[in-house]
Amino acid sequence: MAEPRKTRSSATTAEIAVLGASGYTGAELVRLLLRHPKVAIKGLTADRKAGQAMSAVFPQFVGFDLPKLVTIEDLDPGAFDLIFCALPHATTQAVIKNVLEKVPEQKIVDLSADFRLSDPAAYEKWYGHPHQAIELQARAVYGLVEIYRDEIREARLVANPGCFTTTSILAIVPLIEAGAINPDEIVIDSKTGMTGAGRGARENMLFSEVSEGIHAYGVAHHRHMAELDQEFSRAANRPVTPTFTPHLAPMNRGIYATHYVRTEGKTTVEQIHRVLADFYKSEPFVQVLPMGEVPQSRHVRGSNHVQIGVIADRIAGRAIVISTLDNLVKGASGQAVQNMNLMLGYPETMGLEQLALFP
Amino acid sequence: MAEPRKTRSSATTAEIAVLGASGYTGAELVRLLLRHPKVAIKGLTADRKAGQAMSAVFPQFVGFDLPKLVTIEDLDPGAFDLIFCALPHATTQAVIKNVLEKVPEQKIVDLSADFRLSDPAAYEKWYGHPHQAIELQARAVYGLVEIYRDEIREARLVANPGCFTTTSILAIVPLIEAGAINPDEIVIDSKTGMTGAGRGARENMLFSEVSEGIHAYGVAHHRHMAELDQEFSRAANRPVTPTFTPHLAPMNRGIYATHYVRTEGKTTVEQIHRVLADFYKSEPFVQVLPMGEVPQSRHVRGSNHVQIGVIADRIAGRAIVISTLDNLVKGASGQAVQNMNLMLGYPETMGLEQLALFP
Amino acid sequence: MAEPRKTRSSATTAEIAVLGASGYTGAELVRLLLRHPKVAIKGLTADRKAGQAMSAVFPQFVGFDLPKLVTIEDLDPGAFDLIFCALPHATTQAVIKNVLEKVPEQKIVDLSADFRLSDPAAYEKWYGHPHQAIELQARAVYGLVEIYRDEIREARLVANPGCFTTTSILAIVPLIEAGAINPDEIVIDSKTGMTGAGRGARENMLFSEVSEGIHAYGVAHHRHMAELDQEFSRAANRPVTPTFTPHLAPMNRGIYATHYVRTEGKTTVEQIHRVLADFYKSEPFVQVLPMGEVPQSRHVRGSNHVQIGVIADRIAGRAIVISTLDNLVKGASGQAVQNMNLMLGYPETMGLEQLALFP
Amino acid sequence: MAEPRKTRSSATTAEIAVLGASGYTGAELVRLLLRHPKVAIKGLTADRKAGQAMSAVFPQFVGFDLPKLVTIEDLDPGAFDLIFCALPHATTQAVIKNVLEKVPEQKIVDLSADFRLSDPAAYEKWYGHPHQAIELQARAVYGLVEIYRDEIREARLVANPGCFTTTSILAIVPLIEAGAINPDEIVIDSKTGMTGAGRGARENMLFSEVSEGIHAYGVAHHRHMAELDQEFSRAANRPVTPTFTPHLAPMNRGIYATHYVRTEGKTTVEQIHRVLADFYKSEPFVQVLPMGEVPQSRHVRGSNHVQIGVIADRIAGRAIVISTLDNLVKGASGQAVQNMNLMLGYPETMGLEQLALFP
Repeated sequence: MAEPRKTRSSATTAEIAVLGASGYTGAELVRLLLRHPKVAIKGLTADRKAGQAMSAVFPQFVGFDLPKLVTIEDLDPGAFDLIFCALPHATTQAVIKNVLEKVPEQKIVDLSADFRLSDPAAYEKWYGHPHQAIELQARAVYGLVEIYRDEIREARLVANPGCFTTTSILAIVPLIEAGAINPDEIVIDSKTGMTGAGRGARENMLFSEVSEGIHAYGVAHHRHMAELDQEFSRAANRPVTPTFTPHLAPMNRGIYATHYVRTEGKTTVEQIHRVLADFYKSEPFVQVLPMGEVPQSRHVRGSNHVQIGVIADRIAGRAIVISTLDNLVKGASGQAVQNMNLMLGYPETMGLEQLALFP
Repeated sequence: MAEPRKTRSSATTAEIAVLGASGYTGAELVRLLLRHPKVAIKGLTADRKAGQAMSAVFPQFVGFDLPKLVTIEDLDPGAFDLIFCALPHATTQAVIKNVLEKVPEQKIVDLSADFRLSDPAAYEKWYGHPHQAIELQARAVYGLVEIYRDEIREARLVANPGCFTTTSILAIVPLIEAGAINPDEIVIDSKTGMTGAGRGARENMLFSEVSEGIHAYGVAHHRHMAELDQEFSRAANRPVTPTFTPHLAPMNRGIYATHYVRTEGKTTVEQIHRVLADFYKSEPFVQVLPMGEVPQSRHVRGSNHVQIGVIADRIAGRAIVISTLDNLVKGASGQAVQNMNLMLGYPETMGLEQLALFP
Repeated sequence: MAEPRKTRSSATTAEIAVLGASGYTGAELVRLLLRHPKVAIKGLTADRKAGQAMSAVFPQFVGFDLPKLVTIEDLDPGAFDLIFCALPHATTQAVIKNVLEKVPEQKIVDLSADFRLSDPAAYEKWYGHPHQAIELQARAVYGLVEIYRDEIREARLVANPGCFTTTSILAIVPLIEAGAINPDEIVIDSKTGMTGAGRGARENMLFSEVSEGIHAYGVAHHRHMAELDQEFSRAANRPVTPTFTPHLAPMNRGIYATHYVRTEGKTTVEQIHRVLADFYKSEPFVQVLPMGEVPQSRHVRGSNHVQIGVIADRIAGRAIVISTLDNLVKGASGQAVQNMNLMLGYPETMGLEQLALFP
Repeated sequence: MAEPRKTRSSATTAEIAVLGASGYTGAELVRLLLRHPKVAIKGLTADRKAGQAMSAVFPQFVGFDLPKLVTIEDLDPGAFDLIFCALPHATTQAVIKNVLEKVPEQKIVDLSADFRLSDPAAYEKWYGHPHQAIELQARAVYGLVEIYRDEIREARLVANPGCFTTTSILAIVPLIEAGAINPDEIVIDSKTGMTGAGRGARENMLFSEVSEGIHAYGVAHHRHMAELDQEFSRAANRPVTPTFTPHLAPMNRGIYATHYVRTEGKTTVEQIHRVLADFYKSEPFVQVLPMGEVPQSRHVRGSNHVQIGVIADRIAGRAIVISTLDNLVKGASGQAVQNMNLMLGYPETMGLEQLALFP
């Protein structure tokens, strides 16, 4: 069995690897980490593009000093202070199991869905096969910083949440916890940009198939519902199953979730707004807009920010809560870096200071 | 007072005018009417662009023989078999009142909101001023052909419905009428393309303000709710007020409405699907997809078609009904031509046979 | 050997097949042919999607009566008055050879590149392998109607030109023929929409790879140069090799070609304009804008039209000639129907009357 | 007359004002300056939006501490170490004249066109009126850092170059200076994103007018030609007038310039590539791709980077040189910050380290 290796994060610079660097979340990790003052990218894998330069796969990195892409097998998992895993689900659990057998104390932030569901039965139901690393699942912490900050600081395996789920959990969980809304009456109509679907070459992701139009998909069976159920239920302390419909919008980045909720008892919509404003008043990345104001996804594009708006419906007792973030940043790689910062003892916002790119 | 003039529609070709031809719905009327075998465009107005050729304002008409743009004052309202009015609301009621004083029997299809609300109080509430032509309002027929076909055949003043409202009425009114859904539990999350906002030069409609992002607008106060209330209430025979949130998506054309409904009593989602499939089984422009299939807005782009899908939610007793159309065709000018066809005794589909332009 | 079968085009309705109906040019053929008053679509092939309904592959056709997709082998080539072939190059020559062995007099409009180059050596140089049906190549007519109308009327095998080449030939060939420009000084900077790349699932055609940016491709080696060389050289009666650079723009449809030319001898830019205006003055689909006016690709979107503008450069003796068309219509399927109309003795514009869809 | 005030830039943090902060280049300055470690934004003007918060005009700044928008009159020009002027041309020269009368030594980076042309006659010819501050024009330095770095360090008034001109000067001036290309045979076909047109509400900038299509504009008379003439002529030491055609592409950001050049004498295309590669080998923001590689505008989006590619044409003696940058960063506000860094003695790349946002 491998020796527990000494933590390198006390050193000035942490050494980092990204498994799965040829996808969009991988590239986004590299974009952020290259500008992080306390990390050095020392390993990049991409099985099908091994041997290529990262700048050949993503030419925005021309001129930057980055390690060549290698296969996972060619990487020594013990050589890094922290590993980001940006691989497809199912593959991921095998890879991480293997890494942790070799380096038991390795810190990992996993961007796949593999360790997000704490209930193995839920995993099997939604993903169609038994989980291959149940024992690791038990150690994994759900990496939504604003909810699980303390647990993440102590974690060695963090499951970075899904993009849809981050957007909706941030808007809804504080309201459920405060007893401000009826958990059985939540309808989520969510819209995502195209990068959420990844870089795999599929006909239904071609420019001409998705531009100049919009459509729902995964209606009533999208897997992110499993995460919503888990987190909403934890907040409510009883089973909660929201209605959730994702849509594909013709844009690169952005999740825009419109939540239709009903106030609980005598709660007013203003109180709903206050619950959220209070919950996030010290958070660096979540901005609750003034009551009645409506956010736009483009105003968080490229940043780790979340904007949330609360609007009273014209029907008494109903409210519309809208939250938006960039699916590749706060919805994936930015949140992963935020998790890394906590796990390595860095300031939480380090390397994530970039403002939104608008227009 | 003017003499009732003899109907020209018995002749081979009806002579037509378009008031407000320099906007998008005006141009779309011209696109359709130029290919209609039984009409001739004989008048085009555009107050601010009077004197210009239509092809200077819309270069897609270079090479086509069209009358020059004139002011409304320069047009003889008695010279046409039918007038389309594609002017801004409020302006419209004064213009139409004036036309009908001169030519009392003039057939008019109005694309503005001015004559859609039969209740003057509702008009005043939603538009902020008293209606200036209440006496005409009483004669106007709501021009949603699939619902009011018989009335439209006899009408002289037809109020062409709004784009959002057409989309949702077609999906929901048959369900309310059939008692299949609970009218008090309707949530409509709608997405529109940019042409719905017209051609007026406003900062928030610039390419860079609306591309690469999505946002809700008019939340809880969009005026199309007045029409939804009216038509849903008529169908239910009691007051109905749905929740309705419109969103702007970065595309030119398309309304995509996701309706969250609850079945009434023991109705199943399959029965909901059957109600709609039966209701539209002979309609040339409305296609109900097989149970569980999800439409896409791009598949009706440029056509007068509507596609409707019904999907069971994972929560028992709830369904998601999605309808989509092209806001400039079935949501505006195509529906106006459909109304014209009925009013002039032509086959309803004449001039509207174009298929969707996809990709 | 098969009997010469009697021509069916004398009948009221010609029976038509489309080989390769699951691609974009196939779908566009179906869109146009469904509204053509003198043809009936009787066969549709798509090898990988055989057995599916056309409306499953392209849901804009839901509700239309179309034959099921079959494999090419399952189609009787003798059963049609005319066959459109919208298959990949190289495959095409084998398929057509086979068809013509069975049905020697079969009329075919081929949308691939396989029969466009009359010189077998040129084909081999640009496509990297010897032509497999050289004997048929000799019978093929280059299907650019405005240039080869008479030959097309008599043809049995028409090679529908490429989209880039149609755009540039229409702008440049009349000028070379008239001796108005210097054939050795032609620079073509062309921009195309994404549908030109087809429906094959490739990473570099994904929405997020091509939206929000522009780039050149195939610089100095794009195969459409072979066609430009052939047609420019024919017009000049000596070898001509223009400079040609295609670019991919983030839009679905449209070719926009900016030609930088130099006047020959004492020719003025106004004379260049006049040459084009005269050449096209009776053409139904080509519009030469007034001197100095600049076309836009969106104004021909969805139509079979071409718009051409001529602008004097500020440098004496140089002109900028801009031409634009819809790559799927006049650049592919519309032109193919135009060819079919000639080959079957129909009016040339039949079924192609649709106006541009703008906005 | 005002006293020369002591330079504040020796202090830790320079205090900065942005005149014209409600436009796109103003917002982009704020985006960059908020993350610059050595500056503090102390003044923001926007005449028509005075009194509003910057975050009301650009909601991406919600949560950031920024001064309220004021009118220019309400700003004390003596209170800043450096002023960015992002106002419309013509207005600018009056404003800057006024500022410098009050504070003669004030350091200014002007993003308008007003001080870019050193020849007053050229200004009058291209802008249609005499320059109102000719005496200041003489002091202004053309702020293209890679060409005029030393002069900028000493300058007090820097004229930030145009976006088209920056793109083409960086690609072409080193080649003219090296005698590698024929200055009389330069054809520039340039494509720009929509943000280059600013935030003014004009019909021809609406989403539906510019999406889903492309077009040339300003053909043979775009004002950026005046700058190209000036800088190309300086490099050649004799008058040079390139052919230049700008196009609007449906994207937010990016200039993509395709240059058609001819080698001088026995120069090879490889030598052209080497001239550029050598010229920029130590530049932090300009990347010359390997011979034959083609850049894409999206790979520099949001960054201050420029990518340049050189490709041999198939015609001997001709080359295609392609350069691309983000018009709001290296083409405007990023370059302005780069100029500021030099003027204040900061490291040139400070605050400009952001990587491109792709996808």
